Amino acid sequence: MSSTHLGIPKGTRDFGPHVMARRQYIFQTIQGVFRKFGFQPLETPSIENLSVLTGKYGDEGDQLLYKIVDSGDFLKKASTADFEAGYKKLLPQIASKGLRYDLTVPFARYVAMNRHEIVFPFKRYQMQPVWRADRPQKGRYREFYQCDADVVGTSSLLCEAEIIAMVHEVFSALGLTDYTIHLNHRQLLVGISEVIGASGRQTELTVSLDKLDKIGPEKVLQELESKGFKKDQLTKLEPLLRWQGTWKELKQPLQTFFQNSNSGQKGISDIEAILQYVKDMGISSANVMVNVSLARGLAYYTGTIFEVVVNNVKMGSLGGGGRYDDLTGIFGLPNVSGVGISFGVDRIYDVMAQLQLFPVEKLSFSEVLLVALDGESERYALAVLSKLRRNGVASELYPDRGKLKKPLNYANKKGVPWVVLIGPDEISSGKLTVKHMAEGTQEQLAEEQLVRLLKKKRN
Amino acid sequence: MSSTHLGIPKGTRDFGPHVMARRQYIFQTIQGVFRKFGFQPLETPSIENLSVLTGKYGDEGDQLLYKIVDSGDFLKKASTADFEAGYKKLLPQIASKGLRYDLTVPFARYVAMNRHEIVFPFKRYQMQPVWRADRPQKGRYREFYQCDADVVGTSSLLCEAEIIAMVHEVFSALGLTDYTIHLNHRQLLVGISEVIGASGRQTELTVSLDKLDKIGPEKVLQELESKGFKKDQLTKLEPLLRWQGTWKELKQPLQTFFQNSNSGQKGISDIEAILQYVKDMGISSANVMVNVSLARGLAYYTGTIFEVVVNNVKMGSLGGGGRYDDLTGIFGLPNVSGVGISFGVDRIYDVMAQLQLFPVEKLSFSEVLLVALDGESERYALAVLSKLRRNGVASELYPDRGKLKKPLNYANKKGVPWVVLIGPDEISSGKLTVKHMAEGTQEQLAEEQLVRLLKKKRN
Repeated sequence: MSSTHLGIPKGTRDFGPHVMARRQYIFQTIQGVFRKFGFQPLETPSIENLSVLTGKYGDEGDQLLYKIVDSGDFLKKASTADFEAGYKKLLPQIASKGLRYDLTVPFARYVAMNRHEIVFPFKRYQMQPVWRADRPQKGRYREFYQCDADVVGTSSLLCEAEIIAMVHEVFSALGLTDYTIHLNHRQLLVGISEVIGASGRQTELTVSLDKLDKIGPEKVLQELESKGFKKDQLTKLEPLLRWQGTWKELKQPLQTFFQNSNSGQKGISDIEAILQYVKDMGISSANVMVNVSLARGLAYYTGTIFEVVVNNVKMGSLGGGGRYDDLTGIFGLPNVSGVGISFGVDRIYDVMAQLQLFPVEKLSFSEVLLVALDGESERYALAVLSKLRRNGVASELYPDRGKLKKPLNYANKKGVPWVVLIGPDEISSGKLTVKHMAEGTQEQLAEEQLVRLLKKKRN
Repeated sequence: MSSTHLGIPKGTRDFGPHVMARRQYIFQTIQGVFRKFGFQPLETPSIENLSVLTGKYGDEGDQLLYKIVDSGDFLKKASTADFEAGYKKLLPQIASKGLRYDLTVPFARYVAMNRHEIVFPFKRYQMQPVWRADRPQKGRYREFYQCDADVVGTSSLLCEAEIIAMVHEVFSALGLTDYTIHLNHRQLLVGISEVIGASGRQTELTVSLDKLDKIGPEKVLQELESKGFKKDQLTKLEPLLRWQGTWKELKQPLQTFFQNSNSGQKGISDIEAILQYVKDMGISSANVMVNVSLARGLAYYTGTIFEVVVNNVKMGSLGGGGRYDDLTGIFGLPNVSGVGISFGVDRIYDVMAQLQLFPVEKLSFSEVLLVALDGESERYALAVLSKLRRNGVASELYPDRGKLKKPLNYANKKGVPWVVLIGPDEISSGKLTVKHMAEGTQEQLAEEQLVRLLKKKRN
C-alpha cells in the first residue's frame, strides 16, 4: 500500500525507547515524590461525556475539545435542516462524548460522583494524557501528559507548604537545583483593585497582569488604560509591577500597601503562614519569590497561586498551581476547598536535555548482551542468561548467529554496556569473554565473577 | 447544575486509589519482567490517522473504531448529497482521525516509519489504553489497557522460548502459579487441512476450530459439514479435537499424523526447538500444553500461537500471542518476522482478586500518619515528617486539627498502618505515641526508634 499511510496526526508524537527511558525517569521521580507525600493514584477515562467537559474551559476551550462521532448511525437524530444550519448546530446531534482536556475537571467530576466513599482530605495524583485540538507549534502538542497532585477537603495552608516541599524534592531529584517558585495570592490581586480604587475589577486587572511577562509593564498599563482604568489608579498600580522578591524583602512594603485592605491582609497572612510551615519542615525558602503580578490565567483559583521556572533557561513555567475554593461546585458539591500542582513533563524534559541532566547510567535497558558462537554455546549461554536474570540483571541473548559485527552494533545502538561472548574456547576454559562497550576493554571472567560484577554495578 | 452531568460513558471506568494500587502492582510486575528480558518501552499517540487504522481489523473492527470529528468547520468538505446519502457516506468527509484500537497496528506503523533508525531485532513493550466502540458487558470495556511485548526482525525460535519464560516469570511473581500455556502452530493447522484432504481451506477450518471452547466438538464438526467439508475429512479431523497434552504425550501421534505434510513437520520441529530452548533455560515446560485446536482468531499469525489460562478459575485467556511473518507489509515494509505476547490486565486483576493474591503490605500508600494535637506540636511534627521522608518513608501530617476520630478514620480508610500522635506530653518526654492500626496496639517511641522501625518495615 502507499506510504501515505505512514504519518501520525500533527501535534502527536511517537516516543521511541531512547526518549521513553528519559520520560519514564521523570515520571517515576515525580510519582515517587507524590507517593512519599501520601498522594494516591487516580485514573479517569480518556473519554468523558461532553456534558461534563463543555463550558468548563471558556469558549475557546470548547472549540479545542476533541469530539467523538457517536457509534452506529450518528445521523439518526439529525435533520437536513440541522445539517444546513452548519457544523455548530449539527455537532451536538452527532457527538455526545469528547476527549479529556485536562485532569482537573475529570478529578472534580470524580470527587463529586464519589463524595460518599472518599475520605477527606483526599490527596490524589494523576498522570495521564490530555488532548487539545490546538494549532500545533514548537512545544505545543495536541496530545500531552499532565502530572497533577491535589488535596481537596481542607483549607489548611499546610497543604500549600507541602506542595512547595514537593517541588523542592522533585526538582532536586532531577538535578534542576537552580529554580524559582513564583508565589502570589488571589486575595492580593483583589486587594490591589481595592487599594487603587477599582474594587471589583480584579478580573480585568488579572487578565492584563497575566501578560506582564510577554508584553512588559508599559503595555500592561496601556491596556488597562484602554479598559477604562484611571490615570491615578494606574499610578498607584505602577510600582507593584516591579515588586518581586523574597518574602523578607516584600513583607514590609506589602503590609504598608495593603494596610486598609482586608483581602490584602488575608493574602499576606496566608503567605506568612505557608512560609513558616516550609521553614518548620527544614526547607529553605530562598527559592520562593513573592510576585504580586503573577496572575496564572483566570480559571478557578481563589487563594495562593504559584509557578515554577528554571533560572537561566529560556522556557515558560515547568509547573504551577494554586488553591481553589469551589472546584466541585459545578458538579453539585459546593465548598470543597483544595490546592493542587501540575508538573509540565514536556518542558521538564526539554530543560533537562538542554542542561544534560539525564543520568546515562540509569537509562540503559539491558545490562548485558550474551552472544553465542554456535549451537552448543547457545545452550550454555541460556543457562548463564537464566542465572543473570535470577539475580535481577536485565539481560538478553542475541537470537541470531553470524558475524560478530551485528550483535556488537546492536549493543552499541541499544546502549547495552556489557557484551559477553560464549564459544567453544569459553566453554572449555570456563571463562567467558566480557567486553565493556564504552571503554572498549575485554577480560575473561568465570560465570560467578560475571554475576557478581553485574549485580554490583546494578546497586 | 444538574446531576446528569455526573456520569461517565458506558464501558469506561474510573480507577480510584484502592483499585489503582492493585493495577499498578500488576503493571509494574509485568513491566519489570519485560525490562529484565531486554524489552524497551514505546508509546504511540492515542490518535492515529484513520488511513492507518481502517481495514486492519476486518469490517467489524472498522465499525468499532472511535472516530474523531475534524476540528473547526468539519462540514466544509461535505455536501447535502453526502449528508442525505447517510452516515457511512458522510463519515469520511467529517472524520480523518480515530482512536487506537490495539497496540499492534500502531507498532507496525512505527516500525515501518522508523525502519532506518531502529536496530533489529527490535524488542519493544507497550502498555497503553485502547478503545473499541463495542457493546459493553461484564468484563468487556470500551477503554482498556493492553500490555504487549514483541520482538521483530528475527525468526529465531529463541524468541518464542523467551516469551514462555516471561509468562512463567510474570505469573509466578503474581502468585498465579497454577496456569497453563496452550501452544499451537499455524503450520499444524495448514498441515491438518492437507492431511484430511482439504488443502488451502485452513482459514475456514481455523474459524470453526476457534469456537471449540464455546460450542464443543459436535457443533464444530456440524459447522464444518455445513461449510462443505466431507464426511471422511471430518472423520480424520475428529480425533484431533481431543488432542491436548504435554509435548511428551503428543509428539509421537503428531509425527505419525503429519508424516506426509511438510507444513505439519515444520510445526512439529518448531515446537520441538522451542521447548528445548525452554529446557535449556532451566524452566519446566510442565505448564505447556500442546493444543492443536487452538486457533486464536484469524489475524496475522503464521507460526506459533499460544494462550495462557489460569486453571480452576472460569475466565478466558489472560494473555496470548504468536508469530507473524509480515506484520509491517501493509505499511510497505515486507518480510519482517516477529513474535509477540499481550497480557490481559483486566482479567489478571479479576483472577487475582478472586484468589486473593494481592499482597496487602505492598499496596499501602502512606506508611505513617502524624497527628499534631496543637500548634506547637505541629511545628515539632513537621520536623519529624521531614526526617521520615528523608529516610524514604512515605508519610503525611494530618492537616486539620480537632477530634482524634477524624485522623484515625482517615488512616483506617486509607490503609495507613501507623498513626503517630504528637502533643505537649510527647514533646516534653521526647517519646511519641505510636499506634499500630491493624493490631490496635500503642507504644511510646523516641523519634530515632520510630524512624528505625518504619525503615525496617519498608525493607
